[in-house]
Amino acid sequence: MAISTIEWSDGRIKMIDQTLLPNEFKQIYCDDLESIWEAIKSLRVRGAPAIGIAGALGTVLGIWDSKAETYQEFMKALKSATDYLATSRPTAVNLFWALDRMTKTAEANSHLSIPKLKDRLLAEAEEIIEEDKAMCRAIGQHGMALLHENDTILTHCNAGGLATSDYGTALAVMFSAHDAGKNIKVFADETRPLLQGARLTTWELMQAGIDVTLICDNMAAQVMKEGKIQCVIVGADRIAANGDTANKIGTYNVAILAQAHDIPFYVAAPTSTLDFALETGAEIPIEQRSAEEVTEGFGKATAPEGVKVYSPAFDVTPASLVSAIITEKGIARAPFTESLKALRG
Amino acid sequence: MAISTIEWSDGRIKMIDQTLLPNEFKQIYCDDLESIWEAIKSLRVRGAPAIGIAGALGTVLGIWDSKAETYQEFMKALKSATDYLATSRPTAVNLFWALDRMTKTAEANSHLSIPKLKDRLLAEAEEIIEEDKAMCRAIGQHGMALLHENDTILTHCNAGGLATSDYGTALAVMFSAHDAGKNIKVFADETRPLLQGARLTTWELMQAGIDVTLICDNMAAQVMKEGKIQCVIVGADRIAANGDTANKIGTYNVAILAQAHDIPFYVAAPTSTLDFALETGAEIPIEQRSAEEVTEGFGKATAPEGVKVYSPAFDVTPASLVSAIITEKGIARAPFTESLKALRG
Repeated sequence: MAISTIEWSDGRIKMIDQTLLPNEFKQIYCDDLESIWEAIKSLRVRGAPAIGIAGALGTVLGIWDSKAETYQEFMKALKSATDYLATSRPTAVNLFWALDRMTKTAEANSHLSIPKLKDRLLAEAEEIIEEDKAMCRAIGQHGMALLHENDTILTHCNAGGLATSDYGTALAVMFSAHDAGKNIKVFADETRPLLQGARLTTWELMQAGIDVTLICDNMAAQVMKEGKIQCVIVGADRIAANGDTANKIGTYNVAILAQAHDIPFYVAAPTSTLDFALETGAEIPIEQRSAEEVTEGFGKATAPEGVKVYSPAFDVTPASLVSAIITEKGIARAPFTESLKALRG
Repeated sequence: MAISTIEWSDGRIKMIDQTLLPNEFKQIYCDDLESIWEAIKSLRVRGAPAIGIAGALGTVLGIWDSKAETYQEFMKALKSATDYLATSRPTAVNLFWALDRMTKTAEANSHLSIPKLKDRLLAEAEEIIEEDKAMCRAIGQHGMALLHENDTILTHCNAGGLATSDYGTALAVMFSAHDAGKNIKVFADETRPLLQGARLTTWELMQAGIDVTLICDNMAAQVMKEGKIQCVIVGADRIAANGDTANKIGTYNVAILAQAHDIPFYVAAPTSTLDFALETGAEIPIEQRSAEEVTEGFGKATAPEGVKVYSPAFDVTPASLVSAIITEKGIARAPFTESLKALRG
């Protein structure tokens, strides 16, 4: 992305408000903890890696104006900030990973003065962003080896530049292949209820000059049956030790459809998305979203008032449906329990 | 339905404008061929059986004010009307079935005076409506035998009263079970792009007092995995001789997901939906709809301007994924080539 998805800007967090895209391109500022929490919760910033960055920058925001005079007071303020940010969204592990890394950095630097500690934490957040950029590029390089000339890829939701600080995860593979001169095409699921595919993925791919076609989520099987899709690539919000993968609701649908049509199904994600504390995906907490996102998502009511709605924000794709997991450190294949551990090192 | 989905009213066709539901309940009148063609094309009236009725009543409308003085002139006007109506939507066979039946009725009554022939054709259209009502009730009675106490059924699109003149096809099974005192629940796919599930199916089921929960199409696999669904019941727009079934886009998705979770997948449709002229579903023409239905479906743009869109209105579910076909004459099971022929008689 030529323009940063999210960055530190002079004591505040500056981000693209993704809820307004593609109709309006607007950068907003968060200058307190409440506003960054709200931005994560309402998906102004979204995508597992970008949520991690929002968590790291949010932690800095939480202590930036702290009047703490002792390390103990400072750490109390920091813990209050990270505890609060941790309540914004439960599924993507990158948020907790980033909050934990910020806490550990503060712990490892207890010898610094409060002002220097603040600077050190900002530097750590900036480093997470730099690492994220390098991660995107590395995922792209590893993943493009899986693509053939004239392949058409199906993707779900948005795992692109807007979900990270740079090239994305799933989309990084497509951007890298395109940059390398490979001729590829993409079908993008619109991804109900919040239409990240229709609003964000098509927008990013069109800007990059990649041939993209939008479909409704329920058209994927038909498109596969017509022989239009050579592989599926999606991102991930949390990957258990055995390779079970939590990602945007509908991903598990697509994985079953891919298997039924003998189409490889790839997950692209940084190793920070791996959660070895969980043996299987059954333990991943699944966020439930509000009914209104389904019934009033298009700006006008599209269902009867008072209708019951069930709206899980994520689902878990069992490892048995995953052909490979593309990380910044290389590609893992089944059995994932061994291959992922070897990759993470 | 207490209020007719579509009916003849004093020289005009009166119908519920289904594009306005559930926000507005409005009955509109079509008083010329162009307006009934437009009503079919833009889904003011939709659902295979209801489209058949619209075709029959549309044929009457086409000749009602005819100044023809000879039988030949009259038949020319009739053919002009049926040829025109046949161009409205290509997939549902009930339309062609109804137009053909109206033509055959006119041919069999060439001895009548023109005024009497007009009345005879109106009587035939009314008879199609009466048969449709009886068909709905019979499908309901046959189908409810497949449901168990406390079953939860997943349905896609709207195959309810609004798709027919009475109880519907897929929904007739649920209405009949509910009437008979069975405790059942329903999950309704919203059914992008035109949201017939969100707008129409939930509305009908809520009015009948049946417990219904709305989900986005891409949530079906997750809901199945959670053990919430005991069977799937959908309608059909055209069924080939071998049981391959064309229905609203996304039906094939759901059929694959049902098989992956060992959940029975039932199709409910009248025998007028059978098209023995087609050996398999590969021959069924699939209507393509406009990009705007996906990108601007509800009054606001949800995708970048100029994005490419692929939007088939239907898909074909292979017979191998269909557990049974529920018709007004009984239930057919594999091998369908034999069982469907036996049922139609």
